[in-house]
Amino acid sequence: MDRSQLIQQIKAKQSYLCVGLDTDFTKLPIHLQSHPEAVFTFNKAIIDATKDYCIGYKINTAFYEVLGTKGWEIIEKTLAHIPSTHFKIADAKRGDIGNTSAQYAKTFFETFAFDAITVAPYMGEDSIRPFLEYKNKFTIVLGLTSNKGANDFEYLKTSDDKFFYEKIISKISTWGTPENLMFVVGATQATQLENIRKIIPENFLLIPGIGAQGGSLNDVSKYGMNKDCGLIVNVGRSVIYASGKENFEEAAATVAKNYQQEMQGYLANSFADVAANS
Amino acid sequence: MDRSQLIQQIKAKQSYLCVGLDTDFTKLPIHLQSHPEAVFTFNKAIIDATKDYCIGYKINTAFYEVLGTKGWEIIEKTLAHIPSTHFKIADAKRGDIGNTSAQYAKTFFETFAFDAITVAPYMGEDSIRPFLEYKNKFTIVLGLTSNKGANDFEYLKTSDDKFFYEKIISKISTWGTPENLMFVVGATQATQLENIRKIIPENFLLIPGIGAQGGSLNDVSKYGMNKDCGLIVNVGRSVIYASGKENFEEAAATVAKNYQQEMQGYLANSFADVAANS
Repeated sequence: MDRSQLIQQIKAKQSYLCVGLDTDFTKLPIHLQSHPEAVFTFNKAIIDATKDYCIGYKINTAFYEVLGTKGWEIIEKTLAHIPSTHFKIADAKRGDIGNTSAQYAKTFFETFAFDAITVAPYMGEDSIRPFLEYKNKFTIVLGLTSNKGANDFEYLKTSDDKFFYEKIISKISTWGTPENLMFVVGATQATQLENIRKIIPENFLLIPGIGAQGGSLNDVSKYGMNKDCGLIVNVGRSVIYASGKENFEEAAATVAKNYQQEMQGYLANSFADVAANS
Repeated sequence: MDRSQLIQQIKAKQSYLCVGLDTDFTKLPIHLQSHPEAVFTFNKAIIDATKDYCIGYKINTAFYEVLGTKGWEIIEKTLAHIPSTHFKIADAKRGDIGNTSAQYAKTFFETFAFDAITVAPYMGEDSIRPFLEYKNKFTIVLGLTSNKGANDFEYLKTSDDKFFYEKIISKISTWGTPENLMFVVGATQATQLENIRKIIPENFLLIPGIGAQGGSLNDVSKYGMNKDCGLIVNVGRSVIYASGKENFEEAAATVAKNYQQEMQGYLANSFADVAANS
């Protein structure tokens, strides 16, 4: 999927919601846990219930790797069940020396048919380039993360009085284009979004941290949106575990729909602004 | 395996060599490529050929993930073939928000029986803590890496005139102890080793970058060794691909043995120094 197709999907659905399939076996509804294919069955039901309200799914690989070889079979089957209209993100946070990153890029873009993968920035250019070389695929680099630990290093000040995360974003933004490069910015960091938009006005941002982590969709949309929307807001736990009972699908659909409707409001403002200015 | 057992192995073998199983199907000897279990057969042969000269094996997960579900079966079988005396490192460079890192820790320490995993530092404390909570397991955090991209961010200067990698190492060293925490320092960065030893005199260092990447074993040993050896030097490509022909096992054994003998010399100096001072 390329950038213009992604924007088309956002306009068509009036949504920039991504549903995070951080599926933890121990948190599944009790009636599903005895099912021989519990995790996949759950994912399938969640996808069917939410696909009209979201434009993508984010698979957090950790929750599948923990299941061993079986976990990767579930990733494969889950990907196959996601409609081709939807953007498929591997939240894998990979990154290594060049020849190893090339293997990771091949893993997620060829062995598995993801549209995008999250990548860690610490090891620099040769650790990121191999991902960027794929056409119509997106590399989503960690910019400013949603967790408490973001304060440890991402907010360190550099000798030229920048935050470390700013150096990361501004340097890496020169290695790719808005056609192949996005950044992760946590919703809990909404106060930094105006600043981030000065550095990268065009790139899409993947925004985790709404829902269980407490970020505000209103703030994120207000400070992070650009003329193409420019946001993919991921919500995981508060959608997929909306109910732990037999009605989990309806509950997930309701929460996803609520987010979509809130987003529709923000998009109307945004696209209207653009229309007024053009 | 705990720290004292690791040191015992180093003394018994007179080696601190770790063999990196970055097994790339396309680089296997031609006569093996038609074998139905080519990668595992190769790993098995390399382990049998080198186990007397090394104290551990490092499995670079990227080279297995690229094979899809089959890759994780090969990891499982390879681990089962490594003798229990040997230290088993997952070179996986994971790290995410706390609840996700907990899943990764469980993956590599419980689902798969690794002794250690490499972890990326960018996301800070809650991304690293879940790994450190395992007893007799090691978290190996990226300190200063061997690749060219290390110059992009790891060598950035902070407002108090430190390199960014120094801040990473000194802060993270307070979260663990030499019993559960190691750091990656690339062999190509040997000039920084004296400095790094001032920050962390006791922690073991995992040193990649010898061989194909051009680092010097002499320099690394001279500047990085401490009274317990304190080094695990990984060599991948130059051991496992020492020959691309039918004699690949003997060739790998010869290269590994050469490294072991060079290491034996450095260890004699080191342990002799300690003996003389005690």
